[in-house]
Parts: sequence; structure tokens; C-alpha cells
Amino acid sequence: MLRIETPGRGLLEITREVEDVVAKSGAIAGLATVFVRHTSASLVIQENADPSARRDLDAWLGRLVRDGDPLFTHTLEGPDDMPSHVRAALTATSVGVPIVGARLGLGAWQGIYLWEHRRHGSVRELLVHVGA
Amino acid sequence: MLRIETPGRGLLEITREVEDVVAKSGAIAGLATVFVRHTSASLVIQENADPSARRDLDAWLGRLVRDGDPLFTHTLEGPDDMPSHVRAALTATSVGVPIVGARLGLGAWQGIYLWEHRRHGSVRELLVHVGA
Amino acid sequence: MLRIETPGRGLLEITREVEDVVAKSGAIAGLATVFVRHTSASLVIQENADPSARRDLDAWLGRLVRDGDPLFTHTLEGPDDMPSHVRAALTATSVGVPIVGARLGLGAWQGIYLWEHRRHGSVRELLVHVGA
Repeated sequence: MLRIETPGRGLLEITREVEDVVAKSGAIAGLATVFVRHTSASLVIQENADPSARRDLDAWLGRLVRDGDPLFTHTLEGPDDMPSHVRAALTATSVGVPIVGARLGLGAWQGIYLWEHRRHGSVRELLVHVGA
Repeated sequence: MLRIETPGRGLLEITREVEDVVAKSGAIAGLATVFVRHTSASLVIQENADPSARRDLDAWLGRLVRDGDPLFTHTLEGPDDMPSHVRAALTATSVGVPIVGARLGLGAWQGIYLWEHRRHGSVRELLVHVGA
Repeated sequence: MLRIETPGRGLLEITREVEDVVAKSGAIAGLATVFVRHTSASLVIQENADPSARRDLDAWLGRLVRDGDPLFTHTLEGPDDMPSHVRAALTATSVGVPIVGARLGLGAWQGIYLWEHRRHGSVRELLVHVGA
């Protein structure tokens, strides 16, 4: 199990952590499946070159899913509680990446990101399954 | 194949049904992949504690994707026909969950939900694959 | 690796290409995972009957994620650069489909689509993993 500490809302790259699990598994080919064990954080595969793409992505989603939206009744944990669940539902809880030549078969510009949706940071648990 | 009857639009928990498939498979470790065989229902992993989170989630998506939106031309099955396809496209048709200790490796607050997007209920077919 | 040429923004069916990979693998049961190696194209399983459903889907997403939105700072490749990333993040980079009777276990009305999010066409690379 991976434990990743997030500094707050936004995308945090975890490609290397997933690659390490694949390397340790010894798999040459197969499928790596990343799974996040939370409902207010999620996964996304996005551009790994220009950080502005990740900032824009988070800004766009923040405008679509408004903190403190009066529609929400589930607000026990604050104005970003329910928006975090919506943001997670719109993105991915699990992602499967084929393994090619003992490495993740990502495209040249792809990175795997953990997307923290709460405003404050947290420690997030992820499972990485490597299958044949 | 699982056959789940939905009472109408909204989230219906299917964690136990998926757990049963995993238990019957005898797998101790591996990957369970749930797949919904429809384009107007989908899957989401969400909070299993407070039902208000699921109601808010469905209400938010219903406001984003309006039934009867005049943009839509594909309206043969009614005002919720095309919105159901959009809602399914924005969420997940398949979800992979690692198996840990012969059980789904879900977080403490996670449940697997079948999300019915049509207003009326239906019988939905799902496949659950258990792999090593 | 599949290489698919897209004619521009919109959905392009790739069900047959994926079925071919499954057939060549000889798998009777298992899991096929499709993965797109780009961050401005994605995957969706949608209705394969009426083309108007795909057009409406693309039109709806185009209205939600506006080309040239002044919110975006990552605009090096033009007004559809950042919208393409957002559209990909809201849909799927990987999809897992159980194999049943040596074929994809899709529902009667389901097809697998490559969703091009850039306005101009491109050659897109996809990986298809077939596991037991």
C-alpha cells in the first residue's frame, strides 16, 4: 500500500511511486491498476510537462463544482466536503495501465496524478495491483 | 452476471453483491473489475456512510446535465434519454478494485454504487471479473 | 499497439479493433483493458446505434468546456489545448471490459469509442492488454 501525503487541493504526481511497485514486482508485461481508497481524492492521467496544465485543470474543476454551493446538504466537514465527493465522482478512482518492457506503458507526455480535492492536505492510501 | 433492479434515478449500493462474487471465486489476492453493460447507467465508488452525500451527488449532476436540454437531438426515449448518456460518460463504466486478504480493498468509507441515470427503474446487467 | 487516425474532434468507434486483439490473443475468458497514451484524447463506452447520441454527447461537452475560455493559461497549442485536457480528465484514459465466450462482454448497445478532443485530427496510440 502506498501512503501519499498531499499538501492540499491539487494534482500530485505519483508516477515514480507506481513505477517502483511495478519494478519490484518483476513483471515484464501485464497490467498495473492503481486504486485510491478515498472518496474525496481521485486519480487522473495528465500532461507531465507544463505545470500550468494541472493548475488550469484544478481551477476549471473548482469553478464547475463550487465550494459552499447551497445545493449541498452534506456539509458536516465544511464547504469543500461535498464538492470533493463530486470532483472524485467526475474523475477516476481506479486506473489501469498496461506494462510494456517492465515499465508503465504511458505516453511520452503522460504522468499519473493523485488529485486531492479537499482544501487541506491529508495522507492518502493507494493500492497498486500488478497482474499478468 | 449480476442482474440488479434499480428503483429509478440515483445510486444503489452493490458492494455486497461484488463481495459475494469475490468470495465465491476463492481469490485471496487479485483484481476485481466491475463492468456495467449499459450506456444509461454507470458505476461510482462513493461514501457509504451518510446517504445525503449520494443524494447531493445525484442532485448536482442533475443540475449540470438538464433533462430536456434543447441542445439534444437524440430524444427518442424522452427528456432523460440523452442526459443519461452524458451522465454515464462523465462517470465510470468499469472500475477495478484490488483484492486484499480475500476481500475488496476498499477504504473504510467506500462503497461501490450502480448509478441509474434514467428516471424510471430498470434491470441492469453487470459483469464482475476476478483475476489474479 | 493500435494506431488510430482521428479526423478531428468527436467519437470514433474502435470496438472492432479491440475485438481483433482479443480474438488474436485466443482468450476465452479474462479481461481486456484499453488504454489511450494521450492526454487530449480519451475513451468512452457509448451507444452504438444512433449516431445522434455521439454528436449530442460531443456537443454537450463542448458547451461545458469552452474553447478559448479566458480561465486557461495553458494555451500554447491554441484555444482547444487546455479544453482537450479537461475533457480527457472528465472521461476515461483506461477501460476494462470482461471477456466472455472469447468476445468482449459488451451490452447489446455498447461500443468502445476513442474520443478525440483536439479540433484537428491526429494519430492516436492505444494499448490493449488481455489478461486471464
